[in-house]
Amino acid sequence: MFKNTLEQIVTYEAGKPIELVMREYGIKQEDVIKLGSNENPYGASPLVIESLQNNAYKASLYPDDSMYELKDALALHFNVTPKQIIIGAGSDQIIEFCMQALNHHNAQVLMAKTTFAMYEVYAKLAGVEISKTQSDGHILEEFLELYQKVKSQKNISAIFLCVPNNPLGECLDSNAIEKLIKAVDKETLVIVDGAYQEFAAYKDKRKAINPQYFIEQFDNVIYLGTFSKAYGLGGMRVGYGVASERIISMLYKVRPPFNVTTLSLQSAFVALRDQAFMRQCVEKNAIEMARYEAFAHKMGFTFIPSYGNFITFSHKEIESTHLCEWLLQKGVIVRNLRSYGLNAFRITIGKTEQNTRVFELIEQYLQTHR
Amino acid sequence: MFKNTLEQIVTYEAGKPIELVMREYGIKQEDVIKLGSNENPYGASPLVIESLQNNAYKASLYPDDSMYELKDALALHFNVTPKQIIIGAGSDQIIEFCMQALNHHNAQVLMAKTTFAMYEVYAKLAGVEISKTQSDGHILEEFLELYQKVKSQKNISAIFLCVPNNPLGECLDSNAIEKLIKAVDKETLVIVDGAYQEFAAYKDKRKAINPQYFIEQFDNVIYLGTFSKAYGLGGMRVGYGVASERIISMLYKVRPPFNVTTLSLQSAFVALRDQAFMRQCVEKNAIEMARYEAFAHKMGFTFIPSYGNFITFSHKEIESTHLCEWLLQKGVIVRNLRSYGLNAFRITIGKTEQNTRVFELIEQYLQTHR
Repeated sequence: MFKNTLEQIVTYEAGKPIELVMREYGIKQEDVIKLGSNENPYGASPLVIESLQNNAYKASLYPDDSMYELKDALALHFNVTPKQIIIGAGSDQIIEFCMQALNHHNAQVLMAKTTFAMYEVYAKLAGVEISKTQSDGHILEEFLELYQKVKSQKNISAIFLCVPNNPLGECLDSNAIEKLIKAVDKETLVIVDGAYQEFAAYKDKRKAINPQYFIEQFDNVIYLGTFSKAYGLGGMRVGYGVASERIISMLYKVRPPFNVTTLSLQSAFVALRDQAFMRQCVEKNAIEMARYEAFAHKMGFTFIPSYGNFITFSHKEIESTHLCEWLLQKGVIVRNLRSYGLNAFRITIGKTEQNTRVFELIEQYLQTHR
Repeated sequence: MFKNTLEQIVTYEAGKPIELVMREYGIKQEDVIKLGSNENPYGASPLVIESLQNNAYKASLYPDDSMYELKDALALHFNVTPKQIIIGAGSDQIIEFCMQALNHHNAQVLMAKTTFAMYEVYAKLAGVEISKTQSDGHILEEFLELYQKVKSQKNISAIFLCVPNNPLGECLDSNAIEKLIKAVDKETLVIVDGAYQEFAAYKDKRKAINPQYFIEQFDNVIYLGTFSKAYGLGGMRVGYGVASERIISMLYKVRPPFNVTTLSLQSAFVALRDQAFMRQCVEKNAIEMARYEAFAHKMGFTFIPSYGNFITFSHKEIESTHLCEWLLQKGVIVRNLRSYGLNAFRITIGKTEQNTRVFELIEQYLQTHR
């Protein structure tokens, strides 16, 4: 009845909700510090929350499937046309569209060894082979070498670049991305995932990607953005792709109608208008990030300077799984990177008081477990 | 770069939002009567709206991807286990999962000539051929004949049954569905789409489908339900499938993580608990439906008795496209069925005063245009 290829697909299985785990540990929900999913610790913009409350009655009304309001606003924001934009249920869904629409005949997709887990999930669902760079993060030269190596035997349908890279935090310069695009075949789609771009662009102008500049020059690149991070709408599932009209029109063919909810479209529209809130979040993130770096130096943690709203720590005397479990029992959720094959853990940069508590706990752990 | 098969796919393109059209006609939004999309005219349950307002702050928090709360509630509601349930962004998404997961090798899918348009959209996306019955609606004998005819040359990966059928309104009896399932190969998935079941079950017990009964007996059937209609959550995009653990586990393999928003899960959970609200909507629908039938008799419209929250009218002296355009200019949105090849139009059963206005206008149209 079902495709044989499904047998090889491992179901992406969500664990028990962390809230339940906490309840079992006897920790009250209000005492939980959730720094495991790179959610915005400052929440959504107050204007978004107000708009959600005022528009709750629209729950019964189907979404405007043309999405013209949000597309117009994004077009204005990025100085492109609405026909160069597609909106998805999270930028994940745009990744899915790309994987579904691309011709993977005799092809592979390329990605960094340690990068956003969903690239692999959607590539496998599309049944395409994956090649990864040797180093964990993004290194331009490694991508170029890998490209040449695979190219000699296979087509390359897509290259995933996560800039900045989740979960490690490093970020290719915009001109490195341009070099890569120029070096690859015009039939290879370069997927530039800027989920955390707002944080990177604030920290270092060289990391700032201008989608309009890229799509004007190249007809084989798509820029992905999301409202889940700096805009604080992780629960609403809204992301977008910016690319040439040709690419967008092909992705539209695999888009299911009504793929974004009425209130999600509305919330993203309001969030995009509240640039002041977004900027405040990004600024506060930078201040708190500096505290994490200082803490790492003080306590002997190794870290890669991060251009996102998270930081990945490792410590040769610490087993990350043990530390993460211990923190969980204290009510702090961070992301263990064991599933990526790393003895490391990723912490979302929280609010000042949350971070202070994290520092206290980790220090306590180090004193007692090393 | 893209698959050749995409060339044949016609993009499902949403027209200009009707609100914009209305604005161009100079009609204020509050004067528009929207009876084109089978939305619940009574909106969402007041408890849902309250819960949305109280939980708006959760917009920044990722959904619980295990969806255990809603799955538990649905399991209890249908007397099945959570492992026999999958939740989608509308029941549309479950249709998409089925089309993606099934083995369509040398296969066709079967459906009624005139039925829910999304079956064809998702079948075409999956690249599978479609065969349709000769008559517009669902006739058991025609399905059995078509099955035998196709079966002699091809596999049949799935059969779509829309009970009640959108956009026509007729509904197979539950025991006719059982006969069909018993007559087909165990490798054919029978997709029983009960999007409007709450209305049908209230009107006539013979139409009521018990998913638990079906999935206990048959390992090749999936029941689809939605929160978009009787539960009034059209904008939130929540539907579900009920089937054997085997089928659900295969569909889970093609499910994208976080496919339903945080507030959608929450709203569906609250909506399911407010059975009283749902029942009131269904009861009012039946009362207003009787008015539409009386109106049809009085004015000479032909209609099929409807088991949903809509009714399809035709009239040999009326061109449906002309009438629908005329109604639009008066601020009333109904669904022209010209795109289905029918000279007919579908009206969502609205509130008393809305329906009264529709009757007045159609009567006025008949007096002036016939």
